[in-house]
Amino acid sequence: MKLAVIAGDGIGPEVVGASLEVLKAVAPSVGLSFTTTDFPFSAAHFLETGHVLSDDDIATLRGYDAILLGAVGGLPNDPRLAGGVIEKGVLLKLRFEMDQYINLRPVSLYPGIETPLKNKTSEHIDFVCVRENTEDLYCGVGGFVRKGTPHEIATQTMVATRFGVERCIRYAFDLAKTRKRKHLTLVHKTNVLTFAGDTWHRAFQEVAEEYPDVETAYHHVDACCMFMVSKPEVYDVIVVPNMFGDIITDLGAAIAGGMGIASSGNLNPDGVAPGMFEPVHGSAPDIAGQNVANPIATIDSLGLLLRETGRIKGDAAAVKAGEQIGDAVRKVTPKFAGKNLDRSGYGTDEIGKMVIEAL
Amino acid sequence: MKLAVIAGDGIGPEVVGASLEVLKAVAPSVGLSFTTTDFPFSAAHFLETGHVLSDDDIATLRGYDAILLGAVGGLPNDPRLAGGVIEKGVLLKLRFEMDQYINLRPVSLYPGIETPLKNKTSEHIDFVCVRENTEDLYCGVGGFVRKGTPHEIATQTMVATRFGVERCIRYAFDLAKTRKRKHLTLVHKTNVLTFAGDTWHRAFQEVAEEYPDVETAYHHVDACCMFMVSKPEVYDVIVVPNMFGDIITDLGAAIAGGMGIASSGNLNPDGVAPGMFEPVHGSAPDIAGQNVANPIATIDSLGLLLRETGRIKGDAAAVKAGEQIGDAVRKVTPKFAGKNLDRSGYGTDEIGKMVIEAL
Ligand SMILES: CC(C)[C@H](C(=O)O)[C@@H](O)C(=O)O
Ligand SMILES: CC(C)[C@H](C(=O)O)[C@@H](O)C(=O)O
Repeated sequence: MKLAVIAGDGIGPEVVGASLEVLKAVAPSVGLSFTTTDFPFSAAHFLETGHVLSDDDIATLRGYDAILLGAVGGLPNDPRLAGGVIEKGVLLKLRFEMDQYINLRPVSLYPGIETPLKNKTSEHIDFVCVRENTEDLYCGVGGFVRKGTPHEIATQTMVATRFGVERCIRYAFDLAKTRKRKHLTLVHKTNVLTFAGDTWHRAFQEVAEEYPDVETAYHHVDACCMFMVSKPEVYDVIVVPNMFGDIITDLGAAIAGGMGIASSGNLNPDGVAPGMFEPVHGSAPDIAGQNVANPIATIDSLGLLLRETGRIKGDAAAVKAGEQIGDAVRKVTPKFAGKNLDRSGYGTDEIGKMVIEAL
Repeated sequence: MKLAVIAGDGIGPEVVGASLEVLKAVAPSVGLSFTTTDFPFSAAHFLETGHVLSDDDIATLRGYDAILLGAVGGLPNDPRLAGGVIEKGVLLKLRFEMDQYINLRPVSLYPGIETPLKNKTSEHIDFVCVRENTEDLYCGVGGFVRKGTPHEIATQTMVATRFGVERCIRYAFDLAKTRKRKHLTLVHKTNVLTFAGDTWHRAFQEVAEEYPDVETAYHHVDACCMFMVSKPEVYDVIVVPNMFGDIITDLGAAIAGGMGIASSGNLNPDGVAPGMFEPVHGSAPDIAGQNVANPIATIDSLGLLLRETGRIKGDAAAVKAGEQIGDAVRKVTPKFAGKNLDRSGYGTDEIGKMVIEAL
């Protein structure tokens, strides 16, 4: 497996470093051979060179099986990074250019991790969000009229295509089918977004007919946010367009213990280009370089990378390595019981070693 | 004060009935005289007559000082009500035609009410959302290309105008200025929505200069959802565009005890047309007509109606009545301690009487 590594900014290099140690530890036992190649794309690199990700970079990255990304982003409010130049130039560019049309975000409360919700346990918080990742408000379609005047108008357009929506919905049904509950909820706002919502709703209903064993539901996005805090147990798999998915998956991360623990994958299930796997947290420049950042979310994202890439490429050793990492993470999380994930007292490298021991 | 009353569907008539009893009780003591006129607009009315709200209805309603609305909406999944016909035909029509550009949603944890969040009390959950109510994805701008084919494209456009954004932001600053903390957070997604987000961000920064005593912050909407469950105490006043506002205010309702308690107002602060005040909950057809629905959210919305309409019209008696209702509600909520708000065991009329006694 050829891995491209974008360690990125802030705590990125540390959490990625710990994750790669875990990979080195697990690989021999399952017979996985791998190479890693470092790429410098980051806010720091942009500030130094003026480059984010060029078309040549994209072409180079296409030669890899998967991409592990730590975190990209500079200091909050740095005017040189305004307007989402790094987010758009690196993260969104990768998602769109690699046609990573699935953003996979597991929302599981791990053993020992505290949820901010009363009376909820691992049994209540155990679902997966399938976020569409290449359309919607993320296309960058829009513009200004009379910018800078009292008559300024800005538009920003959601784009939903049958093609893009259907392939995402199909992936979600396939995933739901493999799970115990076999339940899939579409989240949208069809009573207001009568164009984009209608495209989603019709595609959902039509694809549902091909999956008679999957039970379905529909929730408005506002109601979904209420359910996530009052009754998260109603969810098994959620399928959701890009922008609403961005919102509800951060809420999902919050109820499952916060940023410190949330993993994610951006992938093209058809294998036409490498997927990109990243923790949900940011670059946290305030604690960078101090060996205090928690690498669990990145290690877990690496597990996801190995399982998903392994499945897409038919690489059983990778799947096995990914499963072992996932299991090891769940054995380590009880050590955070009663602790703040971000200030646990354990060093970044120490947590990595705990996972290696648990393997 | 001339009140238009749209009791609506399901539990609407019951919760509105209890609220009007409270109004009758409070009015004489503060010297407020009022009349009420019932209007039949509802899902039931639409199914019977084919009418939602006509231009004539809007013209008639303009003659009133304010509108109290119970709940509109029929059975979930009724195909005759698909595509948001009632939502768009009644609620959104009122908001847009009456230019109710502020949707005011207090998020306060009342005494005795249980939040689903651990370790959070009334001190942590006490903020107000100012949601822009006449632009954004709610304009209905969009359409289809090749609908019903594999090449279908749907678009749905956010519209943000300097005019619309600035007046809303200005209202939020004025409100923040009157509060103890004097803190205002703009919630948007400027790193992705680089057109609409830019219009909001520039207007926010420019208006902020006129309010040097108000402290400001900016949060991405996804981060805001995390903060709402992990650190709701960071918020004092939030200003937010329509669609994100819809989402975060439902989440706000959830952390403050749920739908059963959340009040809201749609208003035009310039007084050019009546405001419309409504509980956040829906018509709950499953429990309609059984005298079990909790009228607290509607009674509290009536309090908001009286305070806000009184302020806009310079009617001190109305403001006083509204304040007394607000105080009475806070005296009654401890009686729900340890109970489910929606199945409290108290009858709808009984809860109304509890508020009247507390007056
Ligand atoms: C950084 C930002 C562009 C990104 C998004 O909005 O998708 C992030 O919030 C995420 O969810 O991965
Ligand atoms: C019913 C619906 C159109 C409405 C909205 O989206 O504004 C509701 O969710 C609300 O928040 O008042």
